Amino acid sequence: MAQYTPPLRDLQFVMHELLNVEAELRKLPPHADIDAETIDQVVEEMGKFCSRVLFPLNHSGDREGCHYDPATQAVTTPKGYKEAYQQYIEAGWPSLACDPEFGGQGLPHVMSSVMLEMLNSANQAWTMYPGLSHGAYACLRAHGTPEQKAFYLPRLIAGEWMGTMCLTEPHCGTDLGLLRSKAEPQADGSYRISGAKIFISAGEHDMAANIVHLVLARLPDAPAGTRGISLFLVPKFLPDANGNPGARNAISCGAIEEKMGIHGNATCQMNLDGATGWIIGEPHKGLNAMFVMMNEARLGVGLQSLGLTEVAYQNAVAYARERIQMRSLSGAKAPEQAADPIIVHPDVRRMLLTARAYAEGGRAFTTFVSLQADLETKHPDAAVREEAADLLALLTPIVKAFLTDNGWVATSEALQVFGGHGYIAENGMEQYVRDARINMIYEGTNTIQSLDLLARKILMDGGAKLQKFGARVQAFIAENAGDESMKEFIEPLAELGDKLTKLTMELGMKAMQNPDEAGAAAVPYLRVAGHLVYAWLFARMAKIALEKQGSGDAFYKAKLATARFYYARLLPETAMLIRQARSGAACLIDLEAELF
Amino acid sequence: MAQYTPPLRDLQFVMHELLNVEAELRKLPPHADIDAETIDQVVEEMGKFCSRVLFPLNHSGDREGCHYDPATQAVTTPKGYKEAYQQYIEAGWPSLACDPEFGGQGLPHVMSSVMLEMLNSANQAWTMYPGLSHGAYACLRAHGTPEQKAFYLPRLIAGEWMGTMCLTEPHCGTDLGLLRSKAEPQADGSYRISGAKIFISAGEHDMAANIVHLVLARLPDAPAGTRGISLFLVPKFLPDANGNPGARNAISCGAIEEKMGIHGNATCQMNLDGATGWIIGEPHKGLNAMFVMMNEARLGVGLQSLGLTEVAYQNAVAYARERIQMRSLSGAKAPEQAADPIIVHPDVRRMLLTARAYAEGGRAFTTFVSLQADLETKHPDAAVREEAADLLALLTPIVKAFLTDNGWVATSEALQVFGGHGYIAENGMEQYVRDARINMIYEGTNTIQSLDLLARKILMDGGAKLQKFGARVQAFIAENAGDESMKEFIEPLAELGDKLTKLTMELGMKAMQNPDEAGAAAVPYLRVAGHLVYAWLFARMAKIALEKQGSGDAFYKAKLATARFYYARLLPETAMLIRQARSGAACLIDLEAELF
Repeated sequence: MAQYTPPLRDLQFVMHELLNVEAELRKLPPHADIDAETIDQVVEEMGKFCSRVLFPLNHSGDREGCHYDPATQAVTTPKGYKEAYQQYIEAGWPSLACDPEFGGQGLPHVMSSVMLEMLNSANQAWTMYPGLSHGAYACLRAHGTPEQKAFYLPRLIAGEWMGTMCLTEPHCGTDLGLLRSKAEPQADGSYRISGAKIFISAGEHDMAANIVHLVLARLPDAPAGTRGISLFLVPKFLPDANGNPGARNAISCGAIEEKMGIHGNATCQMNLDGATGWIIGEPHKGLNAMFVMMNEARLGVGLQSLGLTEVAYQNAVAYARERIQMRSLSGAKAPEQAADPIIVHPDVRRMLLTARAYAEGGRAFTTFVSLQADLETKHPDAAVREEAADLLALLTPIVKAFLTDNGWVATSEALQVFGGHGYIAENGMEQYVRDARINMIYEGTNTIQSLDLLARKILMDGGAKLQKFGARVQAFIAENAGDESMKEFIEPLAELGDKLTKLTMELGMKAMQNPDEAGAAAVPYLRVAGHLVYAWLFARMAKIALEKQGSGDAFYKAKLATARFYYARLLPETAMLIRQARSGAACLIDLEAELF
Repeated sequence: MAQYTPPLRDLQFVMHELLNVEAELRKLPPHADIDAETIDQVVEEMGKFCSRVLFPLNHSGDREGCHYDPATQAVTTPKGYKEAYQQYIEAGWPSLACDPEFGGQGLPHVMSSVMLEMLNSANQAWTMYPGLSHGAYACLRAHGTPEQKAFYLPRLIAGEWMGTMCLTEPHCGTDLGLLRSKAEPQADGSYRISGAKIFISAGEHDMAANIVHLVLARLPDAPAGTRGISLFLVPKFLPDANGNPGARNAISCGAIEEKMGIHGNATCQMNLDGATGWIIGEPHKGLNAMFVMMNEARLGVGLQSLGLTEVAYQNAVAYARERIQMRSLSGAKAPEQAADPIIVHPDVRRMLLTARAYAEGGRAFTTFVSLQADLETKHPDAAVREEAADLLALLTPIVKAFLTDNGWVATSEALQVFGGHGYIAENGMEQYVRDARINMIYEGTNTIQSLDLLARKILMDGGAKLQKFGARVQAFIAENAGDESMKEFIEPLAELGDKLTKLTMELGMKAMQNPDEAGAAAVPYLRVAGHLVYAWLFARMAKIALEKQGSGDAFYKAKLATARFYYARLLPETAMLIRQARSGAACLIDLEAELF
């Protein structure tokens, strides 16, 4: 009953018409020969895999969930997951954006971002398995020794072995400084690691021959807090002399969690009882090493919610076209039927367009940001690399928090379009809402993202990164200042830009007096910044649509309508957010904790 | 691990200090002797039942769910539900606000509203069983023949038999005009009823000796649409000559739904295959009769979300006091511990206070509205009865939609306070979110409530009912105009009142040109109206708190802080909502349906 069609036309619009990725990527030596046609072909192939192989397993995987056998400590993934993963690795998908030196195909980040959207539309719980594996790959590639890289990367890239990140412990998630797991150095250069980890996604499963855990733990001489944490590589099976999975290591799954959603992904309690591991990177610098993974993972979480937003939207539209109920207030639109399809009702359209605008805005945003990841690492000009790095640092917390908050709203609106049928499991809509809820929490809660943006990324460098982004917005405003047809977008965009600048300065002053002022304002502040990004991107997309609307391609008409809806109905949230961000900390902190 | 303490102090504040219910009720002849102490004692007793008997079954009921046996078509409720219901009826709770003529205790509506909040905090899924039964009682009492009333009401009031409302069919929920179930008159004055009903809450279960279904169906000569629907009483077991459950009637449960939440309540597909029934009220006037139930049910749904908001808040506060993570940005608050309790963080407080303000505002609002139900039916002065009826009609859709939207936000914020632990089933928070989601849908979706408010309750009578409410707000503003200490509340309240008046007139003009303008504006409009109500109630509560804050009772300090938080952080939503409501229908309806 549920359906998913990869949004190829809009993906192509974003890549080629909005961001001109072919030309941008060709400036990067590794991609000098890339062409739009190849990109589209690869994306289309991945779309087929997503809609044909993964999507049919989404609902059944949710209903079935993962199973844990206490006797063997083994986890069984839902029916079909393992087979889908075999198809995935046989087609070489894990290697797509990986380093050719270790067997990767070396395709740009921007393509893996596009594909992650589709993978997550099709099946978020399944996609987390290879997603975490890719995170482990990225971390090892950045911080592993040459030997570690030579041994582990090809196996991870081939998808033959998979990976995890083991950070959280029962008493600490956000505050990793409280971490207690211990690592004792051994005479052979390895470490014996002991501790209890929780919430380890894909910590144990039946999809791969081996699982490479990246584990945070403390050395005996470690200073307290976050500066005493080291990172270790702990394989489930210790490699034997031939490089095959050998003896079982002393890391095991003690239980899996029953959760609100992502039932197809095993959320594991992992016990390390003197497990053998090897250090990655320098002692006590494990958190820095892990942040390579974390930043990529944060973009990935934004893409999870983008994927859910798109698939929830598609299903809500299909239902709204088909379900007949009541007559349009402005007169029957389908007089031949007993009632009108509910898509005629203005408030049903408000719900649909909310999801649509968040999907289209999110797609443009994540593609823009992942292109910065390509520029940051591969552009020949250091100044371009630096600017891309700054934009990436600035925008990553916005991708994570803004897209996941929007995904929660959008999936819930899409459910509401179905009325009572949206609440019924078999229609699939409620799963999208449940799955979307975790995205606001993991890889750093949205509050943490907001503090990262306002305190670290903006106030700490005096707004320098924000100004770099602001310059892009200003340039676009200046370019279009005389264009009457763009006025409906340019005026509110310019106004919002000014307001954000003013708000930033005001909060900077207040936070200097009292840091709690930053904590009180950070969450609405991040959403204002997110809306500035979307307003800029929708204005750019509207410009293209205005130019091409005479082409006869109705795509541009719909794009323009979505941009107008965004400006009329979603952007006004900033009027609320700015008032909230300015309302100060007193109303939050004055009440004594015991009076709550 | 989860906890629930009936909020007796705040309930007493609302009943006695804010609304002075003792004095108000004593003006009503049936309640001439009521006193505050008795009210408090009864409420306290009910609170004990809720926290001790019902609350412990909430999580287990969610995990276990209801079971359906296709062989016997029987539904088994979760362990303990049946026994709790026996305790409930043995204590006489179902009879509390029922008519003494038929065995009820004749206590005021306002008390049953207060108790419904607690019942729903403790266990929404369980509370739906007696809740629907009470709806059937109210409908039969208003529209039954003297014989029907004499026979059925005492059994329903005693709780020995229970009731349902059977409206929805697979092809129609919102649009009951499309209803197809048929009723054939029989020679003996009964009817043979056939049809398929879905989403029948408590349609089949093991808690009572008999179930009295109130079923909407069409007579053979019925006109099409909503004016051809009649209401029938269809007992599960036909009463025998002694009034005991006799022959099994041809109404049965074909399946129960797997849903997002309220797992402990059986949502049944009911098949009627020539079931014997008797008409209630006049032919073709069934929808009017059913609306007696619907209006009460809509208040009940608001109370469901109020209950969930309160219990989610309580658990989030307990966790935030206990969980230590990170240091306060303004310096360590618990230096003796490894980290500060998370309640020190401003954004955690924002989440907690959001839930708290929605709980306290909702409690004041529902108690005020249910008091109008007492005044409407029992006040000796016709003018007072009419004003109360108008206020009740105006405010009912706001209770339903505003409280359930707020409950969705509040339960989600409370889950977020728990971080990853909020996503885990055993901590109970995710159940509140899942349960809260249905409340925005059933008994008329929140879009339907918004259209009811704007189009029917306000525009159709030229704003007369709204003016009656507005006069209360104006009187309060005038009373406090010179009070400097109230200025922080009175000024924004007056400003919002003016804005709502202006917005109403503007929308009235636009809707005359194009009814879709009402459809496009209704949802944000209802929330603006809801905020006006809350702003008025919080200002009134703040006034009392300001007067009594010198008393040494910290309750008033907390109340004042909550009111200030509401004004600073939640009321600014109106800045967004008014812009959305004014943004017009074009951005919603211009796009052709096929371009979505």
